[in-house]
Amino acid sequence: MVFFRDFVRVKESMHNAISMNKIEILDAALDDFSEGYFGLSNENRRVLLLTLATQYDLNRKQVRELMKQYLGLDLPNGSFSSFYRIERNLRHSLKPMYEVLFERLNTHPGGLRFLSIMRADILSFLADENIASVRALDSYLKEKLITWLSPANLQLHNITWDDPASLLEKIVAYEAVHPISNLLDLKRRLGIGRRCFGYLHPAIPGEPLIFIEVALMKNVAQTIQEVLWDEPPMPESEATCALFYSISSTQPGLSGINLGKFLIKRVIDVVRRDMPKISTFATLSPIPGYMQWLLAKLASIERCDSTFRENLLKPEEETALLGASEKYTTGKNGMEVMCNLLSSSSHDWTKSDELSLVLKTPLMRLCARYLLEEKKRGKALDSVGNFHLQNGAMVGRINWMADRSEKGLKQSAGIMVNYIYKVENIEENAHSYFSEGQIQASDEVRTYI
Amino acid sequence: MVFFRDFVRVKESMHNAISMNKIEILDAALDDFSEGYFGLSNENRRVLLLTLATQYDLNRKQVRELMKQYLGLDLPNGSFSSFYRIERNLRHSLKPMYEVLFERLNTHPGGLRFLSIMRADILSFLADENIASVRALDSYLKEKLITWLSPANLQLHNITWDDPASLLEKIVAYEAVHPISNLLDLKRRLGIGRRCFGYLHPAIPGEPLIFIEVALMKNVAQTIQEVLWDEPPMPESEATCALFYSISSTQPGLSGINLGKFLIKRVIDVVRRDMPKISTFATLSPIPGYMQWLLAKLASIERCDSTFRENLLKPEEETALLGASEKYTTGKNGMEVMCNLLSSSSHDWTKSDELSLVLKTPLMRLCARYLLEEKKRGKALDSVGNFHLQNGAMVGRINWMADRSEKGLKQSAGIMVNYIYKVENIEENAHSYFSEGQIQASDEVRTYI
Repeated sequence: MVFFRDFVRVKESMHNAISMNKIEILDAALDDFSEGYFGLSNENRRVLLLTLATQYDLNRKQVRELMKQYLGLDLPNGSFSSFYRIERNLRHSLKPMYEVLFERLNTHPGGLRFLSIMRADILSFLADENIASVRALDSYLKEKLITWLSPANLQLHNITWDDPASLLEKIVAYEAVHPISNLLDLKRRLGIGRRCFGYLHPAIPGEPLIFIEVALMKNVAQTIQEVLWDEPPMPESEATCALFYSISSTQPGLSGINLGKFLIKRVIDVVRRDMPKISTFATLSPIPGYMQWLLAKLASIERCDSTFRENLLKPEEETALLGASEKYTTGKNGMEVMCNLLSSSSHDWTKSDELSLVLKTPLMRLCARYLLEEKKRGKALDSVGNFHLQNGAMVGRINWMADRSEKGLKQSAGIMVNYIYKVENIEENAHSYFSEGQIQASDEVRTYI
Repeated sequence: MVFFRDFVRVKESMHNAISMNKIEILDAALDDFSEGYFGLSNENRRVLLLTLATQYDLNRKQVRELMKQYLGLDLPNGSFSSFYRIERNLRHSLKPMYEVLFERLNTHPGGLRFLSIMRADILSFLADENIASVRALDSYLKEKLITWLSPANLQLHNITWDDPASLLEKIVAYEAVHPISNLLDLKRRLGIGRRCFGYLHPAIPGEPLIFIEVALMKNVAQTIQEVLWDEPPMPESEATCALFYSISSTQPGLSGINLGKFLIKRVIDVVRRDMPKISTFATLSPIPGYMQWLLAKLASIERCDSTFRENLLKPEEETALLGASEKYTTGKNGMEVMCNLLSSSSHDWTKSDELSLVLKTPLMRLCARYLLEEKKRGKALDSVGNFHLQNGAMVGRINWMADRSEKGLKQSAGIMVNYIYKVENIEENAHSYFSEGQIQASDEVRTYI
């Protein structure tokens, strides 16, 4: 392994940033470290973070010594003071040395942002190689970030066309759901009939950590075309529904830290206060995992030899599909035909009304099943679904051909879903989902199953 | 013990504030708890805090279980993942349940202030009865407060006559060193030739946690009369010295949390930036423990029968004292005479030039000894001395008859001390004092010993 001069210097400044106590030297060390870090190659960053994780963790000998003392205490007769004393010492010795670096960076100008970038690096290294010490580093840093980014420390900001261009360019850059094509498009997103709200942290000025785009509507939109209008379809005063059509976070380093939950709650409060006529809060959301799940399911049934194997299609659906698909593809049964049609990257089935029609019934039914019944460790398998359900939403409606974009067809055969936030049920839904994995859904969606 | 309805209600809301997870209910519980707490009698507060300390601390069974697992791991062969996992679990199970209450109050409106009041109560109960569980509660809360009140979270505010009366009345109420007698006096403290700076926390608006009063002077003042002028003695532009003549903290609940250290540093920075001609930063400080130490010392020598007992007076001092004191008091030796003179509450010795003169030499000499050599656990015995030395000051000069007030005569026979902050030595002094207990002093003070 080749160590460059730069690397050694950055490593030294990291050491100083952890071990120095004189404020002037410390500030300089923190600056040196963060500037130096940005100049390192990915490989050198990896080595440095590994050093941090392994060389600056715990004094395990001391931890074990304290534990032995503790276990040696006599519970009923011993002085309680000894318990408190050793517990306190243990709390301290269980803090990794790198906690000092995190704490110091957090109160250093630019430090919180740097920590978020550092965590993004840690996550990308973990994706390549799952090293226990780095995982521990990540989980420690994540807990710290959750504390520092508590809702009490975040400011809700109504983003408008009057905001600085430097902030607005971040919105363009990070909009992850429906890309913003040009300046006019951006102006429309912030114009009449729309709202955009972001969460800002005082230590990361001019850059929302997460933002949400809202469309004011008469009814809950069924397709994305209804939302991405050029001209507002009606005066704002007639709106009765606030539709959250996009939520994007800007910091990969904050992955797994659910800021969206609090943002949605705050936005609902603000919109209700400002526009009392709005009574429905809903999303129009993608279903990113539907096709992946369905195709894997079809393939695994195909591989299964049992004569009792499940048929995902009802008999009448299979008959209709086999009849309509003859011209386009072949297969030894309905499921194989469906698999062939859906996995084609050209999505030819969408160009035939006949095929679309016979596929619609099973695809909508299976989509409801995917959203309401397919779980991983007790939580909804779909990531967007999991996000809204844990925030207290219910599955309100699924919409056929709601997103005909390449991405939409590939992810979910063009289907989108409305999650509904009913103010009076948010906390209850979130709680029953969290504790029992219960997924609330409208009767309309339930009838599919 | 009589439990009142109110007490039970407050105890319930405390329990809810710890155990509830629904935000709406939680906010209400935190409000109920803090409002209810303020309505409790001292005795009920005591019982409630004792309940918190003992019923909401750790699950020690779980802690011991995790420790046994940890000690059972095989260090060289075991998977490191297990270490990280148990360490993480231990960190969580070593957190007392009351941490949740502290964290939640901290992010709740008015909560930080409430926590500071709660800690003031804890400290006053500990002064009455030293219970180990309450001491542990206090030490945990203190650590939390230190984190939340880190300099990064505090705002330096230059307090002026333009500030709201509600803030200025706090200055009048809390000025602990030189009481402010009336509105005119306050206006003078904020007027020409003077400055007043406070540290504010965003969660406790309109009330500085600590503030410092500064006089701009030509030379370092030797007596408090030079500082408490009615009319400024010279234009501000001629000032070369900033004299810190008073520093007061407003929150008894923040006792032991050294905010003054950072405040002094920030004020030095601000004053240097605004008035580059000012090169000396000094205090004119009381010596609160001098007389108490000296009288105890004299009494303990008196009780000692050894013929080799120490004589605090030099032979020529003793001769002079015995000669001059004949008219006023008697005693079998100089030390007994000194003890009699100094412990009289009417301070008659100050009314005789002759007595003052013979006492000055030993009192100044012993004062230098007290400030430079008398220590407790390696730190200066004098509390104000300890405060400035740990902030990086040196003992610059001791001043005879600098504070002739009743309090000044009783505490330190009217002597005051100038601590000097030399910008270039602050960090070094603080460090050598902290690590080796080294007290820096001017040659002038050293010659007394």
